[in-house]
Amino acid sequence: MSLAIPTSSEFPTLSREGLVYLDTAATSQTVRPALEAMDRYYETYRASIHRGIYDIASEATDAYEAARDKVAGFTNSTPGETIFTKNVTEAINLVAYTWGRANVGADDLVVTTQMEHHSNIVPWQILGSRLAYVPVTDEGLLDLDALDALLAQGPKLVAVGHISNVLGTINPIAEIVARAHAAGALVLVDGAQAVPSMPVDVRELGADFYAWTGHKAYGPTGIGVLHGRRELLETMPPFLGGGHMIARVGEFESTWAEPPAKFEAGTMPIAEAIGLGAAVDWLTEVGMDAVREHGRDVTAYALERLSEVEGLSIHGTTDTDRRGSLVSFAIEGIHPHDVAEILGRGGVCVRAGHHCAQPLMRRLGSPASTRASVAIHNTTEDIDALIAGLGKVQEVFA
Amino acid sequence: MSLAIPTSSEFPTLSREGLVYLDTAATSQTVRPALEAMDRYYETYRASIHRGIYDIASEATDAYEAARDKVAGFTNSTPGETIFTKNVTEAINLVAYTWGRANVGADDLVVTTQMEHHSNIVPWQILGSRLAYVPVTDEGLLDLDALDALLAQGPKLVAVGHISNVLGTINPIAEIVARAHAAGALVLVDGAQAVPSMPVDVRELGADFYAWTGHKAYGPTGIGVLHGRRELLETMPPFLGGGHMIARVGEFESTWAEPPAKFEAGTMPIAEAIGLGAAVDWLTEVGMDAVREHGRDVTAYALERLSEVEGLSIHGTTDTDRRGSLVSFAIEGIHPHDVAEILGRGGVCVRAGHHCAQPLMRRLGSPASTRASVAIHNTTEDIDALIAGLGKVQEVFA
Repeated sequence: MSLAIPTSSEFPTLSREGLVYLDTAATSQTVRPALEAMDRYYETYRASIHRGIYDIASEATDAYEAARDKVAGFTNSTPGETIFTKNVTEAINLVAYTWGRANVGADDLVVTTQMEHHSNIVPWQILGSRLAYVPVTDEGLLDLDALDALLAQGPKLVAVGHISNVLGTINPIAEIVARAHAAGALVLVDGAQAVPSMPVDVRELGADFYAWTGHKAYGPTGIGVLHGRRELLETMPPFLGGGHMIARVGEFESTWAEPPAKFEAGTMPIAEAIGLGAAVDWLTEVGMDAVREHGRDVTAYALERLSEVEGLSIHGTTDTDRRGSLVSFAIEGIHPHDVAEILGRGGVCVRAGHHCAQPLMRRLGSPASTRASVAIHNTTEDIDALIAGLGKVQEVFA
Repeated sequence: MSLAIPTSSEFPTLSREGLVYLDTAATSQTVRPALEAMDRYYETYRASIHRGIYDIASEATDAYEAARDKVAGFTNSTPGETIFTKNVTEAINLVAYTWGRANVGADDLVVTTQMEHHSNIVPWQILGSRLAYVPVTDEGLLDLDALDALLAQGPKLVAVGHISNVLGTINPIAEIVARAHAAGALVLVDGAQAVPSMPVDVRELGADFYAWTGHKAYGPTGIGVLHGRRELLETMPPFLGGGHMIARVGEFESTWAEPPAKFEAGTMPIAEAIGLGAAVDWLTEVGMDAVREHGRDVTAYALERLSEVEGLSIHGTTDTDRRGSLVSFAIEGIHPHDVAEILGRGGVCVRAGHHCAQPLMRRLGSPASTRASVAIHNTTEDIDALIAGLGKVQEVFA
């Protein structure tokens, strides 16, 4: 842990006495510069964007569009291919409601995977196309041979997570994109867990749509991101109808603004976009390579210490090159909710449940698990606190 | 102006030297208690809601649901009939995409009005049903005889704004609802301008759906509200698919949570909901009767002073009992953008343009107008500054 990694002092809530926050995969702490950027907006130039002619409206517009530039640059996308949404769920649903309804019929196939979050399953069920799942191997990886077999059926879309929020698996997106494109399918990636924890270059990955969210990336709540290939965004129908997304509104027909405006109807989460811009600036300064290295180191330590706990089994691969910064586990004979509750009483914050991934939990043969996730600010001492807490759990249930 | 009305000191941005903010109809200033409530969340109990077992997650869940209670109470709705969205535009589109697609066919009729904001027109165009407009009289009121004629055609829905964002007209919603219900149509109300400026009781109004937004109601950006009648929400299909809105996710079919959860997919704007809760608490303390009375008084003063300006014509009724807290106007021979720009140079913030109401602007025979809108914090001195600024505009164009 020799890296110049930010400490918990960058995150106000973590100054609470005895708090060990290991639930960043659910939501991250928001970093001070993001809070300060939002305060500056509210306190010194609170105004609407894109339409006002006076000074503070210009300041607000500039700050909002500068945030888009920062966010686009952070993942090596472009501002014209970067749409703000309220969260990653809206970003994925936007694609399902627009590109999906225009291009995917009831008999067409969408391929998703057995390790997806509900946000990358339910939108495709609502779309009403045929759906198929890439299975998960016993090691917790995607079965790429099975993917090939599904691609041979000519699906319209492959919808896949970059990092599983339960197994921690880092999926080989560039490889999946290459295979999908060769089969004529587009690819949508749910990057909610990946963007905050490793370097992500959407151009290099080649995905057609890449969605992520601010509240897991040390930013505020209420802001998500959809990157989409420009030529797709240009031809897709709009999603939400309203102000700003139009060119001209006739009584019975309207024409649409160019992307990204076409997909940003009404007054957007202005402060939230500005806050996320500050968060990615801060992450860039820390360096995403360093963030990844730190996360891998602390996660490796967690895997090692957890493997020493009696009756504990870890879900997913132990290869830390293929695992993001989280570990889900089961303890024989003790319900995950009891584990999390007793840990919580001791100040150790972890998540228990189905993690919004019921199909995967059925594959794992258990309706719930306990998950600890590692953030920038976590140290091996936090893992020691987790292990000590698990000791108490076992005392209670001895 | 003898009321105990809050001053500009409650709104940090207004401490900028020489700033006269008359653009609350676009976005309001955010009141300090709302900012403080959001800071408390981010700084002392930043966590996810509904799923965490530890203390700060419970605190966050309690604060989010307490905000729903406050917001529901503010308009005399109930928490089970109050859905958080990102803005009023999403709230209206939610109804179009769910209730609309399930109940309105291509041959069915939706009735909207000639004075609607694009957010209450374009969603119905995207829905793809037949559309008809209640015309606007020369006085700037809805033609209720024409409404009756349209209701005789058996429309499925009447979509109407409570207060026009251009004319300022307060529409007789209870009367419109009574007529629409008698004709078997549901009613959706766009309350974006009304909720922040007058007492609104959704139960008394009887509307089936009532949408409004936080950023115009002295709250933060990134949060909107949809009230819907419980029995409708229960039978409507879901909108965005993802976490929290499900009961069980099968591989090919899922079942949905009860409302409001059914319509709140993914991680919601948590801080923003909490901020809006604090804003409506503050508004309740000020008293919405006092807010309305103050707005009417300052608007009456504005109407009087503006009518003295040479070549200036006011859009809409001069009856202040039928007008909300805003005035749009034209000055002969001077483009509204020039008016707003010169005013803006003097620190007076007003809006110029089509106000996202192009069909209405065509009815008014002008593609743009200038609009001044009156907030809680505005005084007759602010109107004097506007009038002085208009004097300078006329000097420039003399």
